[in-house]
Amino acid sequence: MHLRKFLLFVLSLGSFSAYAEFKTLPAEAPVPTDNPQSPSKIELGKMLYFDPRLSVDGTVSCNSCHNVMLDGGDGRPVGVGVRGQRGGRGSPTVWNSAFHTVQFWDGRAASLEEQALGPLTNPIEMGMPSHDAVMERINKIPGYVQAFKKAFPKDVSPTIQNLGKAIAAYERTLITPNSPFDKYMKGNKKAMTVQQIRGMKLVQEIGCTSCHTGVNFAGDGFKMGEGHYQPFPQIPGSKYDRQYDLTSDKGRYEVTKKDEDKNHWRVPTWRNVAITAPYFHNGKVKTLDEAVRVMAKTQLDMDLKDDQVEDIVSFLNALTGEFPKQTIPQLPKTSNFSLTPEP
Amino acid sequence: MHLRKFLLFVLSLGSFSAYAEFKTLPAEAPVPTDNPQSPSKIELGKMLYFDPRLSVDGTVSCNSCHNVMLDGGDGRPVGVGVRGQRGGRGSPTVWNSAFHTVQFWDGRAASLEEQALGPLTNPIEMGMPSHDAVMERINKIPGYVQAFKKAFPKDVSPTIQNLGKAIAAYERTLITPNSPFDKYMKGNKKAMTVQQIRGMKLVQEIGCTSCHTGVNFAGDGFKMGEGHYQPFPQIPGSKYDRQYDLTSDKGRYEVTKKDEDKNHWRVPTWRNVAITAPYFHNGKVKTLDEAVRVMAKTQLDMDLKDDQVEDIVSFLNALTGEFPKQTIPQLPKTSNFSLTPEP
Repeated sequence: MHLRKFLLFVLSLGSFSAYAEFKTLPAEAPVPTDNPQSPSKIELGKMLYFDPRLSVDGTVSCNSCHNVMLDGGDGRPVGVGVRGQRGGRGSPTVWNSAFHTVQFWDGRAASLEEQALGPLTNPIEMGMPSHDAVMERINKIPGYVQAFKKAFPKDVSPTIQNLGKAIAAYERTLITPNSPFDKYMKGNKKAMTVQQIRGMKLVQEIGCTSCHTGVNFAGDGFKMGEGHYQPFPQIPGSKYDRQYDLTSDKGRYEVTKKDEDKNHWRVPTWRNVAITAPYFHNGKVKTLDEAVRVMAKTQLDMDLKDDQVEDIVSFLNALTGEFPKQTIPQLPKTSNFSLTPEP
Repeated sequence: MHLRKFLLFVLSLGSFSAYAEFKTLPAEAPVPTDNPQSPSKIELGKMLYFDPRLSVDGTVSCNSCHNVMLDGGDGRPVGVGVRGQRGGRGSPTVWNSAFHTVQFWDGRAASLEEQALGPLTNPIEMGMPSHDAVMERINKIPGYVQAFKKAFPKDVSPTIQNLGKAIAAYERTLITPNSPFDKYMKGNKKAMTVQQIRGMKLVQEIGCTSCHTGVNFAGDGFKMGEGHYQPFPQIPGSKYDRQYDLTSDKGRYEVTKKDEDKNHWRVPTWRNVAITAPYFHNGKVKTLDEAVRVMAKTQLDMDLKDDQVEDIVSFLNALTGEFPKQTIPQLPKTSNFSLTPEP
């Protein structure tokens, strides 16, 4: 443990030297070369994102668990899918997810395009029997067939890959700029309170920002493959392991089955973290102050004092951004029949 | 039965004379004197309408079953509430509901204000234990406390009555103007096709418009208390009674327990009926053409020919209006904790 503490101290020095490297949130997200943004693609993606007909019984859309009217998640410990089924993990926020280097808690999708297709056929999420079944529905809605044609003019008919591309294109617009932190970093020194500035220094001094780096504070400051995954708990054995059941879900190991990935997780974002309670992969921690205590103990072997916790929570509140105005999409209708079969 | 047919014939003559009395959809809905519209009230109502935190486990908002991105209903045979529970009846469309004289399939709410409060505490809909529990949540969201104060400046703190008033105020903005029928009635004789015009004449000739009167084609053309409820089936005994289970739900009788109300229902609207499949109180009829056949048989004792059905369906498609543009509401957030308890 002592060696570990020393190494963490060295790491924290590293992050401290990176003080000036705190990054503000860009106005635009990185765009892959094979899926350029276009207004018609974004509009199609938005319709698909809000459409509950993409779930087997017409009850669940992407927005059900990643609610852009709220925090981009769902405020619940774990997601709830079709027929009231509960998932095993909390719904990560969709806001600023375009800045993540990998998607899902365990990073099992390399892109938003890939991520978007997962929940459709997950039996406890949207529950569709297959991607073909999804496209069969899409093809029965004339407005969607037209919208796909407009968004992907080179393709004869809608494809599941283009469905993922359109949703990803929409998600790349879900950015929350102008947090007090961003304003502060851009030169408005009054944008953060004295307490928030104290908290900002503290998270660097004690080493939080060793992992929470980059524009999303989510390891996206690392080079690809380095540091995107971190053990949680880093230091097993604290009271929190049992109290919040921190170790039974093996995280990235569930994907790779490699021992060294046991209890490793993608570093979660700090952007908007104040409004995305409850916390951690299983949503077992209900408040931000407790989440801060848990992280300090399990990752840095520190017992924070109350005023330190308050300062850090205050800083994390400075990372809540502004939510852009959007119009409510009108989803293409079907005439004279309903698309959703009786389940 | 012969007397009944004769009476229906007389009724149909009555409606035929009302040919010129077809009404276009007004741009604004009637507003009760004790709940005048205001921008801040409408905005508050819209937030509440889309907020799943008004349900016990944070999964169901008003919009879940009355989806304004779709047809104002949910495209399912019956509504689905918290924990995957299924209701007994289909979700009526919220679009143009402000023109109804009474609300719910059985008319058990006299106003939108009253209707809005029902589903909150229905155990198979939003499942909140009480209206007090709803307001307890509202009071924990600072943004809502402010928004109530702005919308209802005379009241010290949020009340359940004001919550209903705000939702009703928002719903009064959900109007779909400029259907081909409305354009036709306003003088654009090319707005409807020849087939649609044939259908329009047919529904009058055979007597459909004896009940489907008023701006909503939903009995709202009658004076209060007259004709808002109609028996369905009017003429029991057809094959459809069993095929679509038309009689086991007793409709308005379930509210009044009066024998004369057995199997009576509020006349459903024809506005946007082409996109609100499946049909009838139990959603058992999947297509509009079959719904037309069922109605002709059970209400008018008529076996329509295929071309008559097609003409009527064509006319009903001319009643699909335009959906106004709206912005997506940003719901007031909670900081550092989540409002939705683990269910």
